[in-house]
Amino acid sequence: MKFSQFFCPTYKEAPKDAVIASHALMLRAGLIQKSGSGLYNFLPMGIRVIQKVKQIVREELERVGCQEVSMTILTPGELWQETSRWNEMDDLMLKVQDRAGRDLCVSPTNEEVIVDIFRKSVKTYRQLPLTLYQINTKFRDEIRPRFGVMRGREFTMKDAYSFHMDKSSLDTVYGDIKLAYERIFKRIGVKYLIVDADAGVMGDSDSKSNEFQVIASSGEDEIVFSDEDGYASNIEKSKTIRKEGPVGSLSDHSTLEKIDTPNLTSIQQISDFFKVDNSCCLKSLLYGVEINNETTYVLAIILGDDELNDVKFNNVIDCDRFWPALDSEFEKLNLFAGYLGPLSLSENIRVVIDEAVDLDRSYIIGANEEGVHYQGFVPKNNLNNFVQRDIRKTQLGDTTPLGNSVNIERGIEVGHIFQLGDKYTKLLGASVLDKQGKHVNPLMGCYGVGIERTVAAVIEQMHDDLGIVWPDSIAPFHICIIVTSLKDLNLVSVADEMYNEIRGLGIDVIYDDRDVSPGVKFKDADLIGHPVRVVIGKTWLNESLLEIKIRKGNKVDKMSKEQFFSMIKEMFT
Amino acid sequence: MKFSQFFCPTYKEAPKDAVIASHALMLRAGLIQKSGSGLYNFLPMGIRVIQKVKQIVREELERVGCQEVSMTILTPGELWQETSRWNEMDDLMLKVQDRAGRDLCVSPTNEEVIVDIFRKSVKTYRQLPLTLYQINTKFRDEIRPRFGVMRGREFTMKDAYSFHMDKSSLDTVYGDIKLAYERIFKRIGVKYLIVDADAGVMGDSDSKSNEFQVIASSGEDEIVFSDEDGYASNIEKSKTIRKEGPVGSLSDHSTLEKIDTPNLTSIQQISDFFKVDNSCCLKSLLYGVEINNETTYVLAIILGDDELNDVKFNNVIDCDRFWPALDSEFEKLNLFAGYLGPLSLSENIRVVIDEAVDLDRSYIIGANEEGVHYQGFVPKNNLNNFVQRDIRKTQLGDTTPLGNSVNIERGIEVGHIFQLGDKYTKLLGASVLDKQGKHVNPLMGCYGVGIERTVAAVIEQMHDDLGIVWPDSIAPFHICIIVTSLKDLNLVSVADEMYNEIRGLGIDVIYDDRDVSPGVKFKDADLIGHPVRVVIGKTWLNESLLEIKIRKGNKVDKMSKEQFFSMIKEMFT
Repeated sequence: MKFSQFFCPTYKEAPKDAVIASHALMLRAGLIQKSGSGLYNFLPMGIRVIQKVKQIVREELERVGCQEVSMTILTPGELWQETSRWNEMDDLMLKVQDRAGRDLCVSPTNEEVIVDIFRKSVKTYRQLPLTLYQINTKFRDEIRPRFGVMRGREFTMKDAYSFHMDKSSLDTVYGDIKLAYERIFKRIGVKYLIVDADAGVMGDSDSKSNEFQVIASSGEDEIVFSDEDGYASNIEKSKTIRKEGPVGSLSDHSTLEKIDTPNLTSIQQISDFFKVDNSCCLKSLLYGVEINNETTYVLAIILGDDELNDVKFNNVIDCDRFWPALDSEFEKLNLFAGYLGPLSLSENIRVVIDEAVDLDRSYIIGANEEGVHYQGFVPKNNLNNFVQRDIRKTQLGDTTPLGNSVNIERGIEVGHIFQLGDKYTKLLGASVLDKQGKHVNPLMGCYGVGIERTVAAVIEQMHDDLGIVWPDSIAPFHICIIVTSLKDLNLVSVADEMYNEIRGLGIDVIYDDRDVSPGVKFKDADLIGHPVRVVIGKTWLNESLLEIKIRKGNKVDKMSKEQFFSMIKEMFT
Repeated sequence: MKFSQFFCPTYKEAPKDAVIASHALMLRAGLIQKSGSGLYNFLPMGIRVIQKVKQIVREELERVGCQEVSMTILTPGELWQETSRWNEMDDLMLKVQDRAGRDLCVSPTNEEVIVDIFRKSVKTYRQLPLTLYQINTKFRDEIRPRFGVMRGREFTMKDAYSFHMDKSSLDTVYGDIKLAYERIFKRIGVKYLIVDADAGVMGDSDSKSNEFQVIASSGEDEIVFSDEDGYASNIEKSKTIRKEGPVGSLSDHSTLEKIDTPNLTSIQQISDFFKVDNSCCLKSLLYGVEINNETTYVLAIILGDDELNDVKFNNVIDCDRFWPALDSEFEKLNLFAGYLGPLSLSENIRVVIDEAVDLDRSYIIGANEEGVHYQGFVPKNNLNNFVQRDIRKTQLGDTTPLGNSVNIERGIEVGHIFQLGDKYTKLLGASVLDKQGKHVNPLMGCYGVGIERTVAAVIEQMHDDLGIVWPDSIAPFHICIIVTSLKDLNLVSVADEMYNEIRGLGIDVIYDDRDVSPGVKFKDADLIGHPVRVVIGKTWLNESLLEIKIRKGNKVDKMSKEQFFSMIKEMFT
């Protein structure tokens, strides 16, 4: 491709809302252009990258037996009503009525549709296992679209769905697709972690769920991992071991005793007052909880220096939604923020205590009276109605189950695989005959890769001050040829010849033949991030050598034409 | 691919609403599955065909310098408001508001968006000409979706848009893309005609527009053509020469005379009564016409045996919409259906006379009185306010401008190329600097291919009673191997070996290893339409020969393995 004929507008600056590197660089290097809130058009430079990613994804999925289909983007509302997600997905789903008044939505995901395809076509166990996938457009009406294509509203997803007669078949295919994902991200050339992820409420304890996370400071997820023992989990799900906290003076106080604590409402204030470690206090958090349109309340209790893990908490209470209780709700329940505790509570309020709380130990808690706390609260002695569950958030200082200390880093979720069980096949009445002629709802797995997000994540991980540093596998062009003067016909003829020769090798090459200064060409080459830049200029005139820059590391070398060609053949063919 | 592992449900019958061959066969051969009204999911067999078509389209467009982009499917309403198409496209456009109350639509076409991309990125004439294309999903909320993917609501279109400083550059690129389209349909292997097409109101006389029409009896368009001189036009636009009609007795009556004609309201009744040819009567048609929300009326006058060409008429009157006048409108205007004519009309009613009407000749017309006609109406003598334009529809018996008689056949529009002029660049304020530093609105061309519709059109043209007859270029598989008995390990081992050998050649092969009767396999192979079917069965056991069926023509032959391989290498590599 000759740059003079290539549609690739580049910019020195990115707009102010581009706060992360990938967003800014994709705009500046002419990969994308914004069309509306959370809507990005892809320009030719971006298309080249996207297509390479899609190709890798396709090849690796087909290799493990997945078959490609394509579902419509607009899907009938009736299907979503069968599973109740028409209401549950709520504002995230873009709903529309057609001219005949029929409900449609712009698909945010496709479990319903794939099960509809399945139930219309598959009748017997002999047709299973079956894994279908598509690479297609989705729309989620995010409340705050941001970070460019990282969290856009319209995006391309590879979504695959598998169907099985039994868990062992599901486990096998799940393993195959996990392997395919490993190959995909390895081929793309990005560093990633496979982490345990939350499978949601429907995931029973037996259901696997893994995320493929690209480690990058701009990530929206927190990843807990240990390099020593390979532990890796999304913090939403991580189960790690707290460091042993100081016991303080509390073992002395095993008798429940009310203490006046006027105006002391935070854990820090209370532990200062009692001269104990924060972990000797219990933090009580009151949540409103909606289940089937009824509101109840739950008190979550964790150690004073812990944080609540919302996702774990949500899975424990299994509700439609929950929220920190409002002032008006405190009032209605006659409770006091800052003085909450599990004693003298209305029976309607469920109590969930975190597993890190030692039920035999004595703690300080709020007394549910304004300005009063208890000391000497021993859960086992003083409390009857409660459940103990894992609801705390991993923190630095925790150790893995094998005893190694954890790291916590931010990650970008580029892939997610789930075991879904029979939820959707049941709800949609999809069954097949088993060997005994009995109708069975097959088990399902589902498997997603965000295509644009993968590209953005690669850039987050692989860029420097000058621009993008593409891995070879998905670079839009492998090589950029720059000729320093279009007026020097000798240089131009060398460049022309090399351009044709490289193209002949099937290597993706862009020849910057624009009538602009060499400086502009150098800057654009660095910004766009071609793996290899070859300059035909002064060194050619003086020494008959090419000037080669390897973008990764930005090392510049002089090379003969022969050396150059043997290098690029090694790299790209 | 082994059929036992391939997701391809086949059916003996198609649903009743599948009235055309391609619709029925695509459902029966497992290419598609209906999801909702005008919504079809593609299954793996269909995907294979679609991807081959897309690949051919891509290669041929890139070959003439088109560059691929991808626009979002949901597009901001504001853009469409800039050109007024937000209102003009009306019910065809699926409009939706997002959670923030912003207008969006599911794009039915993308002129607005491409011009938005252009105006944000292109600043000078040096960047032109520029042609961008995408292969992407569109949605048109057809009032009567029908014929499967032929007129579905969601569909894939290759849409390209070109930008130019002048008409000569537009003509050059238009010609290049026309050539690319010829190559595309030739490579696909379908018989097509390039026809002159209506460019709509905006197309000035200088604007080119061509349709690529696949001739098939189920087509929705009518194509006028001559094999002798190469004339080819959509009937919407065709300008052909009427046969000379009999003059009848009318030359005698050049004096306007009222004749009572009670209850004679049709042309046939009137010409029988006057004993003249139908063409001696003028057919007057009254239309309501809306322009900028104001309603006026137009009387269209054509020869008695001609039909009105709606599209030509629409271009002449240049209105927002028009309709045959309603009974209530006749009443309001004090006019009488069956007795309409151009005389004694209210001045507000415009009169358009077709060019085939001889202004010097005498005709019979309605008198705008109930039960009365005029004879001896000579337009030139008796009428002042009228325009004469080409508004008749070509009919059999007409001749081309070169004097050859025309054929009229039905066609399926699979491609359409237009010269748009500067309509959109003007409306959206897209300008570039010309050599003199002046702002200029570039000219545009736009170029579409319906991807699914092309597949359906191929099937309409290439099928028989047994099923589809794929051309080699887009057949999902080139070869189908059938082994007649899975129990005969000798046959199976020959089949296995051949399967691997054919795959090794890079030829697309499906191996029907299903545990079903040979009859079922034969039927499915014919239905799906693989170009070559090879049966390993009796003839192998008896004579060490393969039984080969070439689907096109359904000829069956015996062949040695060596002959077979040399044939398929010739055909597919």
